[in-house]
Amino acid sequence: MGTSRRVVVIGGVAAGTKAASRVARLDPAAQVMVIEKGAHFSYAGCGLPYYVMDLVRDQKDLLSTPAGVVRDAAFFAKVKNVNVRSRTEALEIDRDRRRVRVRDLAGGEETWVEYDALVIATGARPVVPPIPGIDLANVTPVHTVPEAERIKALVASGGGRNAVIIGGGLIGVEMAEALAARGCRVTMIEMLPQVLNILDWDMAKLVEQHMIAKGVRVLTGVRVTALRGEDQVSAVATDAGELPADLVIVAVGVRPNADLARKAGLAVGDLGGITVDARMRTSDPNIYAAGDCVENTHLITGGPCFVPLGSTANKQGRVAANALCGVEDAFPGVLGSAVCKVFDFCVARTGLTESQAKADGRDVVSVIAPGPDRPHYMPSAKSLLLKLVVDRCTRKLIGAQAVGPGAGDKRIDVAAMAITADMTVDQLAKADLCYAPPFSPAMDNIITAADVARNKLDGVFEGISAREVKEKLDRGDRLVLLDARSPAEFEEMRLPRSVNIPLGALRARHDELNKDAEIVAFCKVSLRGYEAALILKAAGFRNVRVLDGGIAAWPYEKET
Amino acid sequence: MGTSRRVVVIGGVAAGTKAASRVARLDPAAQVMVIEKGAHFSYAGCGLPYYVMDLVRDQKDLLSTPAGVVRDAAFFAKVKNVNVRSRTEALEIDRDRRRVRVRDLAGGEETWVEYDALVIATGARPVVPPIPGIDLANVTPVHTVPEAERIKALVASGGGRNAVIIGGGLIGVEMAEALAARGCRVTMIEMLPQVLNILDWDMAKLVEQHMIAKGVRVLTGVRVTALRGEDQVSAVATDAGELPADLVIVAVGVRPNADLARKAGLAVGDLGGITVDARMRTSDPNIYAAGDCVENTHLITGGPCFVPLGSTANKQGRVAANALCGVEDAFPGVLGSAVCKVFDFCVARTGLTESQAKADGRDVVSVIAPGPDRPHYMPSAKSLLLKLVVDRCTRKLIGAQAVGPGAGDKRIDVAAMAITADMTVDQLAKADLCYAPPFSPAMDNIITAADVARNKLDGVFEGISAREVKEKLDRGDRLVLLDARSPAEFEEMRLPRSVNIPLGALRARHDELNKDAEIVAFCKVSLRGYEAALILKAAGFRNVRVLDGGIAAWPYEKET
Repeated sequence: MGTSRRVVVIGGVAAGTKAASRVARLDPAAQVMVIEKGAHFSYAGCGLPYYVMDLVRDQKDLLSTPAGVVRDAAFFAKVKNVNVRSRTEALEIDRDRRRVRVRDLAGGEETWVEYDALVIATGARPVVPPIPGIDLANVTPVHTVPEAERIKALVASGGGRNAVIIGGGLIGVEMAEALAARGCRVTMIEMLPQVLNILDWDMAKLVEQHMIAKGVRVLTGVRVTALRGEDQVSAVATDAGELPADLVIVAVGVRPNADLARKAGLAVGDLGGITVDARMRTSDPNIYAAGDCVENTHLITGGPCFVPLGSTANKQGRVAANALCGVEDAFPGVLGSAVCKVFDFCVARTGLTESQAKADGRDVVSVIAPGPDRPHYMPSAKSLLLKLVVDRCTRKLIGAQAVGPGAGDKRIDVAAMAITADMTVDQLAKADLCYAPPFSPAMDNIITAADVARNKLDGVFEGISAREVKEKLDRGDRLVLLDARSPAEFEEMRLPRSVNIPLGALRARHDELNKDAEIVAFCKVSLRGYEAALILKAAGFRNVRVLDGGIAAWPYEKET
Repeated sequence: MGTSRRVVVIGGVAAGTKAASRVARLDPAAQVMVIEKGAHFSYAGCGLPYYVMDLVRDQKDLLSTPAGVVRDAAFFAKVKNVNVRSRTEALEIDRDRRRVRVRDLAGGEETWVEYDALVIATGARPVVPPIPGIDLANVTPVHTVPEAERIKALVASGGGRNAVIIGGGLIGVEMAEALAARGCRVTMIEMLPQVLNILDWDMAKLVEQHMIAKGVRVLTGVRVTALRGEDQVSAVATDAGELPADLVIVAVGVRPNADLARKAGLAVGDLGGITVDARMRTSDPNIYAAGDCVENTHLITGGPCFVPLGSTANKQGRVAANALCGVEDAFPGVLGSAVCKVFDFCVARTGLTESQAKADGRDVVSVIAPGPDRPHYMPSAKSLLLKLVVDRCTRKLIGAQAVGPGAGDKRIDVAAMAITADMTVDQLAKADLCYAPPFSPAMDNIITAADVARNKLDGVFEGISAREVKEKLDRGDRLVLLDARSPAEFEEMRLPRSVNIPLGALRARHDELNKDAEIVAFCKVSLRGYEAALILKAAGFRNVRVLDGGIAAWPYEKET
């Protein structure tokens, strides 16, 4: 570490302030400067939906340390020994002379700032789709504190009676909940056939059903063609008709802010993010980059991916700081782990979805395991649907998804660790996870799911997906849908065209079924369905499968 | 798999019924019999404290499947194809002739039951300490449904006004909460210097403080010498005086029920559990054993351990069944993972404690990382104190503990996965865990803890434990306890003999401190304490350390 080395950081939200603070800690003699275009430093961007929801009441909370101190220039100077300049835009990087041209957005004057090492942490910016009317008032992304502030003020003054969210990604679904909680009538419009493209279709449909149950109108496979209105938006035109709207949230994704890097001739990847090595170094050895402006390496595919997240940004900021201070460190890559709250549901995922894995040419086995997240007798037990994606050849876990009111985040974190450690489902099934009734079932949901995967890999459990069953039903295939639940459960709600033989009666009554028929056994969660299939197989039935995930995972209509 | 093979299972709670059901599924032609001494099968023993608490209202819930079907003989016959015999005691195993002598506890007649393969799943039994008066009425362990039933009835009828719990282990603390919730005055007596011996002393003290705050009288380092009373217990005599008591819960631990195995000449370990290999096979190749009656292998030390848990029992039952049906499987061992709810606290642990690791001759670095379990601005954020134990040489995580109202179970499950995968804290710090404000901070608590560990290993963070500080204070050492919080926080509550210089003022005011003094910097969670130490070091102070875990982890008295 040189004395009085000049470290300049462009961007002062997550990765930038993390890198700057860490450099100042490791090298107290360094002169560390952060250049930030906006007015706020180190603000909690991920908290914006909860600020709009009024769960976070005070804007200051998003801008403060846990101890309640606002992270302003004085804070950074006094506590972190970092010189932060807000409302200052970096215009150009002169790599030859190691300097950055900046403009003071208040006064307008431009100056050159010299560096010995530079960290680019310019983040991402919301994609603005080229739709007519996108510039109307009350049409906004939710990316900055001022944007959230304006939405909150509009809603507080009675606006947002007809709120339309364009885009069904993470921010879209979080905003749907936030606006619904504020009394808005919310419509979500998603171009793709499902919301939350980070999930498989079958899991996403369950999230959609939950959103619909909570009063959100969800339109999938619908494209917005124009926004109408004089000054303010008044309607959203789509290829499926027009909707009234006095507030439109644009949440169709974000793109890396890599323009500055690109103009400076730094390598930028196909996904638009700055290319960095494991030490967060760009193609210029004096320039590092971290956070939402860089491309990541996917730990399973080894290929590039773009997964902008505050968690990754913080880790990368630290790696960049370590690297430029000579401390050994490396950022290995990501699994695309994500979680979000959608009303009463925890929705989480890591690794590859089944469709991603198949698109990647992998032969996979998938498992859907529903069940309570604590022993069924505990009043705190909530239902949780886990999906695992397993490589058939290596038996390694390569993906996991969780949907439902239960604690899915815990199980997906465990799955992320299993994938990181290259574990097979056989190893995962033996993990010594914590057990006590207030926290988990004796066989934790993910242990059970891993055991179902092993049963499938070993041919003991033969499953069939809801989608395949639906296709057979729609084609009019002869198919016996055998519901192994009790008559009372069957009476209350059932799958179309299903027959009911309770599990306890099946050994005595299986003669009622045709031994050569194609049978799909199930129950609420397909545990009794699995037992039923085994009873039938033992009785000589040849063509019996179990409905993956049972009724709990059935994404189509049910009869009541 | 032979046809009509006779598989006999002794014991019908967790491991036994699991093994029997799995064998019947894998080999439908097998004749599977379960012999159980008690009246109930497959009951949720871990749920008993919650039954006493009345959180679980109906005893039937503990005896039912999630679908609400009671697991009785008819259920096992019809659904599982397993013949279960309750109120039947196994008296002797005749290994030569492969048969078990059993007694019908109702009628008294004895018969021999022949087997081709035998599974011993006799569980554990509560230790009955040799205390005078231990046989008095209202002195009971909480191991079976009838015992819990009697406690519940006593409490419902106004008994338990003075409840004494002997033993501060997992069941003891769970029962303390259960009885306190039922309105009992609860005293816990523990012979050791701390409750919950599965934690380090410093973490256990925080649990004790919480129990005391909830109205439980906690006596550590106290030995019970006698129980007094005529028929019913009326007082508990200890080496620290006598306590009135109309209910005494004996929760001093359990021992493996290995008598039957020992008498049959099977190998039994030093800890009293049946010796098994990774396939759960005993020293007789036709006899398997699983669950609380066996000894486990510790995954870190490689040595034997005895950690009776329903989670392990279920996994082992499955391995035994797989092994005896020729399906490849193995149980690798345990980490001693455990969790329990203690009033508002989640208390969890895995791997080795610091004291266990030191006793095992390891050179370790420990970290105490307190913080909110979600971003501080989220109203759902709760505090969580994590402790990590790291091998100094290999940098591998070897233990973790969590105490506090926050979601410690999630972080300890992640730690268990990291230990299982032999991860270093450097690897753990890069884990792609799920992040969104309703679920975790951007830097998850365990990621932060791992980074603190790395800072300690690299000499960037020099910590000192609360215990060492207390010893120095008690010895009267010259020591500056530098509190870096705000004056308002300091005014409200502080450590004895501490001085307050707020972090933001320290760069300007460090002249007030003697550069040669021994300084211990801290704040609420020691984040500002860490920054303070770095500021002082940069200013030329040589003898500065950070109080591990700050005030949040201080287990001694504070000034208010």
